[in-house]
Amino acid sequence: MSKMKIVVIGGVAAGASFAARARRLDETAHITVIERGPDVSFANCGLPYHIGGEIPTRDVLAVQTPDSLKAMLQLEVRTRCEAQSIDRAGKRVLVRDASSGQSEWLHYDKLMLAPGAAPVVPDVPGIDDPRIFTLRNLSDMDKIAAAAASGMRAVVVGAGFIGLEMAEQLHRNGLSVDVVQLQPQVMPQLDAKMARMLENELRRNDIRLHLGDQVTRFEGGDDVLHCRLASGGTLDAGFVVMSVGVRPESDLARAAGLALGERGHIAVNESMQTSDPDIYAAGDAVETRERVLGGRAAVPLGGPANRQGRVAADHIFLGNKARPYPGSIGTAIVRVFELAAGITGWSESRLKSAGRAYDTVTVNDNNHATYFPGAKPLTLKIVWDPESGVLLGAQAVGADGVDKRLDVMATAISARMTVEDLCHLELSYAPPFGVAKDIVNLAGFAATNMRDGLVDVVDDFPADAGVQLIDVRGKPVADASPVAGAVNIPFPTLRDNLDKLDKSRPVVTMCIIGKTSYFASRVLAQNGFKVQSLAGGVRVNGNHRAVD
Amino acid sequence: MSKMKIVVIGGVAAGASFAARARRLDETAHITVIERGPDVSFANCGLPYHIGGEIPTRDVLAVQTPDSLKAMLQLEVRTRCEAQSIDRAGKRVLVRDASSGQSEWLHYDKLMLAPGAAPVVPDVPGIDDPRIFTLRNLSDMDKIAAAAASGMRAVVVGAGFIGLEMAEQLHRNGLSVDVVQLQPQVMPQLDAKMARMLENELRRNDIRLHLGDQVTRFEGGDDVLHCRLASGGTLDAGFVVMSVGVRPESDLARAAGLALGERGHIAVNESMQTSDPDIYAAGDAVETRERVLGGRAAVPLGGPANRQGRVAADHIFLGNKARPYPGSIGTAIVRVFELAAGITGWSESRLKSAGRAYDTVTVNDNNHATYFPGAKPLTLKIVWDPESGVLLGAQAVGADGVDKRLDVMATAISARMTVEDLCHLELSYAPPFGVAKDIVNLAGFAATNMRDGLVDVVDDFPADAGVQLIDVRGKPVADASPVAGAVNIPFPTLRDNLDKLDKSRPVVTMCIIGKTSYFASRVLAQNGFKVQSLAGGVRVNGNHRAVD
Repeated sequence: MSKMKIVVIGGVAAGASFAARARRLDETAHITVIERGPDVSFANCGLPYHIGGEIPTRDVLAVQTPDSLKAMLQLEVRTRCEAQSIDRAGKRVLVRDASSGQSEWLHYDKLMLAPGAAPVVPDVPGIDDPRIFTLRNLSDMDKIAAAAASGMRAVVVGAGFIGLEMAEQLHRNGLSVDVVQLQPQVMPQLDAKMARMLENELRRNDIRLHLGDQVTRFEGGDDVLHCRLASGGTLDAGFVVMSVGVRPESDLARAAGLALGERGHIAVNESMQTSDPDIYAAGDAVETRERVLGGRAAVPLGGPANRQGRVAADHIFLGNKARPYPGSIGTAIVRVFELAAGITGWSESRLKSAGRAYDTVTVNDNNHATYFPGAKPLTLKIVWDPESGVLLGAQAVGADGVDKRLDVMATAISARMTVEDLCHLELSYAPPFGVAKDIVNLAGFAATNMRDGLVDVVDDFPADAGVQLIDVRGKPVADASPVAGAVNIPFPTLRDNLDKLDKSRPVVTMCIIGKTSYFASRVLAQNGFKVQSLAGGVRVNGNHRAVD
Repeated sequence: MSKMKIVVIGGVAAGASFAARARRLDETAHITVIERGPDVSFANCGLPYHIGGEIPTRDVLAVQTPDSLKAMLQLEVRTRCEAQSIDRAGKRVLVRDASSGQSEWLHYDKLMLAPGAAPVVPDVPGIDDPRIFTLRNLSDMDKIAAAAASGMRAVVVGAGFIGLEMAEQLHRNGLSVDVVQLQPQVMPQLDAKMARMLENELRRNDIRLHLGDQVTRFEGGDDVLHCRLASGGTLDAGFVVMSVGVRPESDLARAAGLALGERGHIAVNESMQTSDPDIYAAGDAVETRERVLGGRAAVPLGGPANRQGRVAADHIFLGNKARPYPGSIGTAIVRVFELAAGITGWSESRLKSAGRAYDTVTVNDNNHATYFPGAKPLTLKIVWDPESGVLLGAQAVGADGVDKRLDVMATAISARMTVEDLCHLELSYAPPFGVAKDIVNLAGFAATNMRDGLVDVVDDFPADAGVQLIDVRGKPVADASPVAGAVNIPFPTLRDNLDKLDKSRPVVTMCIIGKTSYFASRVLAQNGFKVQSLAGGVRVNGNHRAVD
């Protein structure tokens, strides 16, 4: 047996997973976990939900304690201890105990760095006001919960995952909530039209969105904090939650001379080794392989963190049975009131920024059989490589079944499946659970039709007035919510009205969800028209004027 | 343009999908759909749910009518018409109109056979009693609904998908329900322990199960129908629903000399062509490639039927762009009161019957983060090829999230993923939706641990009294629900109690869900014990005596 000395810096997701796996693999190793905060292995993803009371009991968030980790895993856990520096030549870490003020050197055979990521705090005048919070750990949570109990108006800065979860949970607490977001959309991981559905849901729940705006100065009044906006307005808040992203805690690694990635993350190989083979790193602080296109990725989420910790332990103890970390694809989901939204792999906007070729289609359907009670709209967008048809990413928004489709797509992307492969996924179907042709199949059908030249889709309403925009929805629907510039020819009457259309001018067909417009485009194309179908229909693109 | 003549026999799932896709691909084809019944393209999977009132409106089940199909797709639909025979040399079908009594020959360039499958009606004395029903179409549904309205006790014969859905829906109607099943378990597609969870759920809802039994004679009384059981008892029922399986409607194909499969299904190639290249077939009547192991499969479910119809139309019209049907894997799901259960690919029992080598593991967890309200137990069983680790099948049972895990597993199986690949699926995680290490990942971890020799699992309580059965659950739990023959050593105390165990005797560790027992097995194995961990724990295996 090894009697190996292992020191783990950081005792939450990656660090705790690593330590647990290491213990399973070696009963004799001496494993010490150093945690700067007062808590280890807590449920950090649950923090917003306790603030809003949806998770009523605080105790359930403290998954493990030093004592329970000692009992279950024979770990020596030291909380309120911080690693000061690493002596790589001497293979030791200088650790300072904040309670006693004492420092000591801990020797290691293998060192795991799992320091996580810290909330970004922008350099804005007044940022030090004590009424401005970030959310990383249980004590942050307690502070925000106390502030929320005051019942005063809250401002959330940043509309990513944590920002939106915080906005909802503060609203749940009865607070009036403003969200300020630098980008012109919430959830910048999503493409703009998908994010717009979330924005509608937030507004429907009285969250005030300030998109494309930022706080340029916080001015502390006696009763309220004045948040001065770049747009000129002021939001007066009882408190502010800053959630504008995270930065990797890589100072210790940098000081030790370990290689970092371009954005300051700790660089690791596929075994989670840093540039020093006796020092591993995992979790929110690291940059790994990006699994879809093979570049580098930093995905600060719980799933990758847990699995990376496991890979590192395997590499230390399992010899040639250890398997590499295949990379992260960036699967993420957020619940926003009655909706869920998420992404796996690459978005269209990210591919565009990277200058990478892609094709995309957006399809709409319901989460389960339409005739079964409770069916709810679901939108799925996929992107793929135009050469090979290999899937690059997917996004979904809807009230139910979003997580399922994201997980199917994440699996398909991991398997390097093509859009053609989606057509024949045999997914579970009974009326309460799905549709005989699931929306994932439909996305495959639509993409394959595009690749086969059976349909030409367009992602926006035509800007050119020379284009004939044909609304093939039923007349009552078209009358009730007319689309600017469109001529209504209900699909069942289309074949009898071809003579009303000008064959010399291009046509765009549109409908509610993008399905009937595809049908219409088939009729028109086979009758000699140059025609495109509006992908996603009115559900995704809104009303003509509202979009343009 | 083709002006091709196409005749479709059967206008529900496969036939309707075929006809719709054919129309999209060719506006000029003359497409005639022959349907024996009064309805086309109805939602057959929804029939049980209308009987129970869960789908309150009958109209929603009639998805299309001949008029709507004419308007949308220019189909000529003839209901109450039956194909009598096929003249393959003359490329024509003799069709009899039941309304007029007239017959006529319809010429075709391409013929699609989508006749479906009929409920099996066993040859039992008294089977012709008018109070014995089967469920295939809307008029069957109406008859059962009328009988159910009588409020009398019902007997359901057969405990497959339709039988269990009927039992639940009749119970929902306030009826007292007995289920008689020839096999010793419900849902024979599932392995016995997975099915047992459904049996418990049925009994919890006062459904009386008669497993391993059958009705040997129906005796019609004036008020009730006496169902005489092989076991000796009698069930007196107001009516009976027979749901003991389906047989392919292949008589027409057989009479036309088309090749059939071993069990009487219409044999088709990967383009859905029968042995006559101008005659296609799709849906419940056909036998296709089995996708996992490459044999032959007949999967009478809506998903494959719809996609097969599409493949056939593509083959006729798309030339070399047409893609083959990759085969069916048999994904199916059923809701039974508060539980859902399903399977994708092969079960253990089916692999065993086929004499095929496999390995398997069953894992338990929750559908989403345990600390988030509403977490519910979920059980996942996977089977794989012991040589390659390639997945062969999966089963899941639980109150929520079953469909999601089945769909992920169906995708993974389609992609020929291995158990190792499951470890690193990056599935969507936020507390309302999942767990940082999803149960699918856990199944991958468990299987990989087995393959790496880190754990030896056993699927049943030890029968040999020489084995030391160690219950590592906490003492309060072990005291409250003791397991026969087990010694309770709570896991946190195990390392200090190794001297109480006999190293010369084999050990089996057990716990609630099979996780802590794995931890314990690691401790014991590294201390020189020969140890196995009981897969699935008490949740899957029940109490020791109850199992053995």
